[in-house]
Amino acid sequence: MGGDLPPRGSFATLTDADVARFRSILESTPGDVARAVLTDEKSLADANEDWTRAYRGRSRVLLLPRTTSQVAAIVRHCNDRNLAVVPQGGNTGLVGGGVPVHDEVVLGMKRMRSVVSIDPSAGVVVAEAGVVLDDLETALNREGMTVPLDLGAKGKCQIGGNVSTNAGGLRLLRHGSLHGSVLGVEVVLASGEVLNLLKTLRKDNTGYDLKQLFIGAEGTLGVVTKVALLAPRKPRRVDVTFAAAPSFSAAVETLVAAKTELSESLQAFEFLDRASLELVCAQMKGARDPLPGSEAPFYVVMETSGSAERAAEERARLDRFLADAKTRGRVVDGVVGADAKHAAALWNLRERISLALKHAGAVYKYDLSLPTARMYELVEVMRERVASAAAAAAAGAAGAFDFSRVSVLGYGHLGDGNLHLNISSPDGYDARLERIIEPHVYEWTASVDGSVSAEHGVGAMKPNEVSRSKPAAAIELMRAIKDVFDPKGILNPYKVLPPRARL
Amino acid sequence: MGGDLPPRGSFATLTDADVARFRSILESTPGDVARAVLTDEKSLADANEDWTRAYRGRSRVLLLPRTTSQVAAIVRHCNDRNLAVVPQGGNTGLVGGGVPVHDEVVLGMKRMRSVVSIDPSAGVVVAEAGVVLDDLETALNREGMTVPLDLGAKGKCQIGGNVSTNAGGLRLLRHGSLHGSVLGVEVVLASGEVLNLLKTLRKDNTGYDLKQLFIGAEGTLGVVTKVALLAPRKPRRVDVTFAAAPSFSAAVETLVAAKTELSESLQAFEFLDRASLELVCAQMKGARDPLPGSEAPFYVVMETSGSAERAAEERARLDRFLADAKTRGRVVDGVVGADAKHAAALWNLRERISLALKHAGAVYKYDLSLPTARMYELVEVMRERVASAAAAAAAGAAGAFDFSRVSVLGYGHLGDGNLHLNISSPDGYDARLERIIEPHVYEWTASVDGSVSAEHGVGAMKPNEVSRSKPAAAIELMRAIKDVFDPKGILNPYKVLPPRARL
Repeated sequence: MGGDLPPRGSFATLTDADVARFRSILESTPGDVARAVLTDEKSLADANEDWTRAYRGRSRVLLLPRTTSQVAAIVRHCNDRNLAVVPQGGNTGLVGGGVPVHDEVVLGMKRMRSVVSIDPSAGVVVAEAGVVLDDLETALNREGMTVPLDLGAKGKCQIGGNVSTNAGGLRLLRHGSLHGSVLGVEVVLASGEVLNLLKTLRKDNTGYDLKQLFIGAEGTLGVVTKVALLAPRKPRRVDVTFAAAPSFSAAVETLVAAKTELSESLQAFEFLDRASLELVCAQMKGARDPLPGSEAPFYVVMETSGSAERAAEERARLDRFLADAKTRGRVVDGVVGADAKHAAALWNLRERISLALKHAGAVYKYDLSLPTARMYELVEVMRERVASAAAAAAAGAAGAFDFSRVSVLGYGHLGDGNLHLNISSPDGYDARLERIIEPHVYEWTASVDGSVSAEHGVGAMKPNEVSRSKPAAAIELMRAIKDVFDPKGILNPYKVLPPRARL
Repeated sequence: MGGDLPPRGSFATLTDADVARFRSILESTPGDVARAVLTDEKSLADANEDWTRAYRGRSRVLLLPRTTSQVAAIVRHCNDRNLAVVPQGGNTGLVGGGVPVHDEVVLGMKRMRSVVSIDPSAGVVVAEAGVVLDDLETALNREGMTVPLDLGAKGKCQIGGNVSTNAGGLRLLRHGSLHGSVLGVEVVLASGEVLNLLKTLRKDNTGYDLKQLFIGAEGTLGVVTKVALLAPRKPRRVDVTFAAAPSFSAAVETLVAAKTELSESLQAFEFLDRASLELVCAQMKGARDPLPGSEAPFYVVMETSGSAERAAEERARLDRFLADAKTRGRVVDGVVGADAKHAAALWNLRERISLALKHAGAVYKYDLSLPTARMYELVEVMRERVASAAAAAAAGAAGAFDFSRVSVLGYGHLGDGNLHLNISSPDGYDARLERIIEPHVYEWTASVDGSVSAEHGVGAMKPNEVSRSKPAAAIELMRAIKDVFDPKGILNPYKVLPPRARL
């Protein structure tokens, strides 16, 4: 995926002396060093390979620091020695951004997992980068608060990685992007210097907002070690509504109606197509179509928040919303979760699509921002391309790739204009299939002024595609900023920025 | 204010040939040039002086372009000639950021006032930089939408200036900061190149989020010419609640209760002290204490949104909230606006403080982010300092400054931890008074890890104070970024960054 491997940069190669130096940096606790400097095959195999199994590096060392000063000492040594480094969070990324391309030192954050402070009256949490999103949610729930983002990967992804990839997720519609929610960061720069921008203030207009550059930089400008985040009050009650739409435009009309009529309580507005629903029901235990008989082409899933004491009233409001949508032909059927368990089951139909796809075989994943009204056209275009290839292959020689077994699925964050286009191949990754998909998927996206990466980032997958969404002047400025922050280019090389020769 | 004038940089001085060149750039419409290149005394007097009358430059030319390409040609000429430029929006800033310090060319944006597009289903508006905030609100209201920020200066301030100063305002609590709401910008760089980052997508993770740097850069990195902004649905109904609190901590407790109990509908949570209320009632026609008899030391003003069809129900909910707050001793009295007119009158008590202060004489304005619980301590500290000075002066020689006529007021965005500290001097600005205030106000703020500029920015007032809120490493990086974007330093010099010698 994403073309050939870029050539290795002129970085130094890891030596025994480097490993010894890392041991001395990380041996602050007796016996700790054995768990902090890992060179065994199993640990390296896990650290080298990404979640999708499409990207695999060959690093020879995984470092697991516990403190910011250890991170600083490691990065300083790497910079002095010209060793390349890849910071790694929960390794749940989908674009190969958190694993080595060649033999980069892997800097894993998972032992930096303290929640530093929670301030309920200000609504702010400070956490180390390696705190797992679900653990952060649990800690905040105890204070009646919640994390302003929610992802399918929450059981494994880390808040530092979320910030570094500018993760979007399921609550962006309500709480906005991390560019608004992150109040401060602590970052280790390429020089090994610690840049303390860890303010917990909601407002701070004293000069350029440097922290914004690290949000979504995927570790190429610095290693995020701590994060200060706005944490809203946890809604006392959440309802999930699942509805079947007769067409994509009807689904979009339902979104507009929900934003108008339920605006102050609307937390998330998702969609999935019939193929996605069928896949989840086939692959995931306990999943079943909640609206059997409707067999609609599209489904929407809506999360609304409310107050505990008005539960009946709020259910009645959602029932009225559904009834009105039916009358107007926007939906053909719908259901409001009867209780927390039912609500979770409905929500899981959307949330578990990604996992179901992983179970089903190889998958080409695209994460695109598109004009909302035209989001689904691309799914149809790709289906036609695969069907044409299947027809051509059927007419051709034996031994051709069996395109008829490929399925094209569309789902995503309708409220954010964010399509997850997934092309599932039970027979594995194949160059013949890839040629049907790329670069067409990117060309089509650019033709409607979309973005080739809505929320997954660029990573190792899309550096050559960034210019489809950004003008040359912007890429030149990005490069200049990279040079300011990381003159030797040791931080997460081969990622984000297109190789110079390609411009 | 803010110390001595910084020395003029080694920029070129405006010549007749420059003015002729500007005329040729701006004469695209016959007869237009007379209104586009202004050198008359009256126009220059207005352009040279800021709203607070504390800052005054001596520019010899005001340029009013109509198009981005005209802005680009002007800036390119200034860069080639090494002429300094100050971009100017509605000139409502409070820190001298939008007026010349010396003889900079003033680039006024007020003729770039088209709303380019409104997309109700995506919830996005694109506007030229010079659109007045109130006009943008009116245009969006017609589509059932609203601007995600609201300022006292909305009748004059411009959206480009709002973005360039990262304006906060009254709805930040609900809609978050402009770092989350701005989807794209078009910017003219110092070279004259147009950087088109005018995406209207909610999500775009393709490389570093460069647009963030222009949000709050006060025109020092480029001239913002267009803005794409998220525009939420306009609430169908807004309620205003005004309540008297027996202490500052009781006001903070009321905020926490409101965030918990009214969370999904809370739009703004403001506070003012008794001195602020009395000033507004004294200075502004029609203003009166809505809770006579309570004579409380603090007041909170809360805006909540809701649905039109449930008006009675929502009023009842707010009445219950007030009754509960009274029972718990958080408030001593309160009132919910009975209708739109009453609500506006209550809201104006908070919104018109700034104007009332202007009527009352000279005013030293400080805009600080502080830990919410300790926000008001600084007002008390400053009152004590002024009282001590008054006592000392009374004991001293005749002709001393009359400190007894000075009043210290505190109000602001309680929900955002943002204090507006205002020191009103009916006898004008005076160095003796200033010495009582500065640098103590900044030192105190730094000592509690606050920010010396919450939302007003740095401008010409606070470049020397930035280091109180930002580490030296951050200031070095800001400088390096400035050098990347504006190598000659022609864009809004003397602003934002501390002079090199001061580091």
